[in-house]
Amino acid sequence: MKCKVCREHAIVDIRRHNAGFCRDHFLEHVTNQVARTIKEFKMFRADERLLLAVSGGKDSLALWDILGQLGYDVTGFYLDLGIGGYSSRSKDLSVVFAGVSGIKLVVRSLNEEHGFTVPELSKLTGRVPCSGCGLNKRYEFNRAALEEGFEVLVTGHNLDDEVATLFGNVLHWNTDMLGRQMPVLTERILGEGESARVALVRKVKPLVKLTERETAAYALLRGIDYVIEECPMVEGNTQHRYKEAITMLEETSPGTKSQFYSGFLKKAADRFRSAEGAELDGGEIVACISCGAPTVIWEEGGSAEARCAFCKTKALALKRKQDPEPQRPRRRRARS
Amino acid sequence: MKCKVCREHAIVDIRRHNAGFCRDHFLEHVTNQVARTIKEFKMFRADERLLLAVSGGKDSLALWDILGQLGYDVTGFYLDLGIGGYSSRSKDLSVVFAGVSGIKLVVRSLNEEHGFTVPELSKLTGRVPCSGCGLNKRYEFNRAALEEGFEVLVTGHNLDDEVATLFGNVLHWNTDMLGRQMPVLTERILGEGESARVALVRKVKPLVKLTERETAAYALLRGIDYVIEECPMVEGNTQHRYKEAITMLEETSPGTKSQFYSGFLKKAADRFRSAEGAELDGGEIVACISCGAPTVIWEEGGSAEARCAFCKTKALALKRKQDPEPQRPRRRRARS
Repeated sequence: MKCKVCREHAIVDIRRHNAGFCRDHFLEHVTNQVARTIKEFKMFRADERLLLAVSGGKDSLALWDILGQLGYDVTGFYLDLGIGGYSSRSKDLSVVFAGVSGIKLVVRSLNEEHGFTVPELSKLTGRVPCSGCGLNKRYEFNRAALEEGFEVLVTGHNLDDEVATLFGNVLHWNTDMLGRQMPVLTERILGEGESARVALVRKVKPLVKLTERETAAYALLRGIDYVIEECPMVEGNTQHRYKEAITMLEETSPGTKSQFYSGFLKKAADRFRSAEGAELDGGEIVACISCGAPTVIWEEGGSAEARCAFCKTKALALKRKQDPEPQRPRRRRARS
Repeated sequence: MKCKVCREHAIVDIRRHNAGFCRDHFLEHVTNQVARTIKEFKMFRADERLLLAVSGGKDSLALWDILGQLGYDVTGFYLDLGIGGYSSRSKDLSVVFAGVSGIKLVVRSLNEEHGFTVPELSKLTGRVPCSGCGLNKRYEFNRAALEEGFEVLVTGHNLDDEVATLFGNVLHWNTDMLGRQMPVLTERILGEGESARVALVRKVKPLVKLTERETAAYALLRGIDYVIEECPMVEGNTQHRYKEAITMLEETSPGTKSQFYSGFLKKAADRFRSAEGAELDGGEIVACISCGAPTVIWEEGGSAEARCAFCKTKALALKRKQDPEPQRPRRRRARS
């Protein structure tokens, strides 16, 4: 196979585009795809300051590299989740990348900030690790962006991630989530008039048109050292099974993934959005009484408690950490 | 495992219901499911005459048996598609079942009615066999129902069929098809006032809550002799690949299929339907100038030709049959 651009020997082929690329033109292709995605979805302007959530994996490090090349003002943010050696190795690689590239990296630790790690949180609350981890990340990323004065939070979700999420949301017809699954979520303001302030920063995903195979190839060809191992806590994760099922279809019909995702954005997403902002569809946004972060009051059931999900989970975890009860049997077993 | 009802030894287990059944209670369960589905979706009344599309396979023969047991006035309709030994074997089994049960069966032959078989049609028009076959069946089923004076056309689509179709429609976001994918499609009237007549009879699918494993078990336990072999023309059929992918997910999460389908009906289907009847969304329904069957004029492009898709395909097939041209190379090859 020859490079689509220069007809030299191709080293990467992209079946859904029916095209091959040499090293340099592949890197150019990836960078152009990201630039086009930013433009198409009006993700951010050149004068805005970006905070990029960095995990030490191929996607976030490749994106960091690409955004730098495109000339954007981007700062990395690494949140140490305390997942043993996996977390320390990914932190090291993030720090190394920042050092080599001379880019600013903000590092925070979940344990130092709040007093628990992701594995501890899961054990203390009985919550599935990936679910607790997601809650922590959403909360901490937004908090960091607000505290450090960034307008935009950038994440490295790629096409495979978005397709797996979309597939899961469609299989369960999570209509709220479908209304929110966009490459850009606009910022949300809390309060009115003089007291108005940004409560949720804008969130954008510039890698939505690239598969994980492509971001991995980009990182490899650019000599970026990233964490190859997967998080040890994802075992049996449903997201993985959705990826497998769709990848099986992609193999016989290249383009299935990108068609599924872009078709959703073009022809279906609007059908799941409410008239005024889909971000917090169905509820009123207020400040959490504990931490001030934005949370939603659902109209059902009268006495709405304006404490955010993170604060509730944190309170439960810290209570159980201080005052450990004997391990209770799981509900299902208790019934037998 | 024990029978959920009588605690005797279970011979069928249904994982998504977390239940086992003995022979008799399984048969009762299946019959009840069909009765409930008919009621839930208001498919038909006891005094309506039903025409059931019979293929000789497990689904249509099981459904025929169940509807008879439930006391409905049901007539079978077998359309001989001319697919070699497969068609003759399935016709024989349909005729045998009708004879044993003493139920009326109408048999028609595509070749006798129109001058071609499904394999010929595919060869003559270059159309994918399953696509041409579907067109023939939709056309002939509706024509037979109208000519023989039936109000309702019943088909044996099961949960797996509906889930595979839904998955395909979602992967491609075929919004028109999503708007029409209901267990009941109401009848459509052509003309107004005195000249008004039913153009498309009501179509219903009473097996949508049963998997193909369940209809096969039902047929087996009732001693119904059905065609086990698959149609020889479905090889590589995308529907099959969708079934495989979803079945993979069902194995780890029993209930995935039924949740996907029923969730669609409850939470998403309406979002894809136009205000007035989704059947022919976006077009005006008129009588075909060749055969009088209902067809759609799409507003795009000025001079709308009111000839139906079946008549167009038939005309092309018969023209080429009478006046065969040398086999033209496929378009893609011609380009190289």
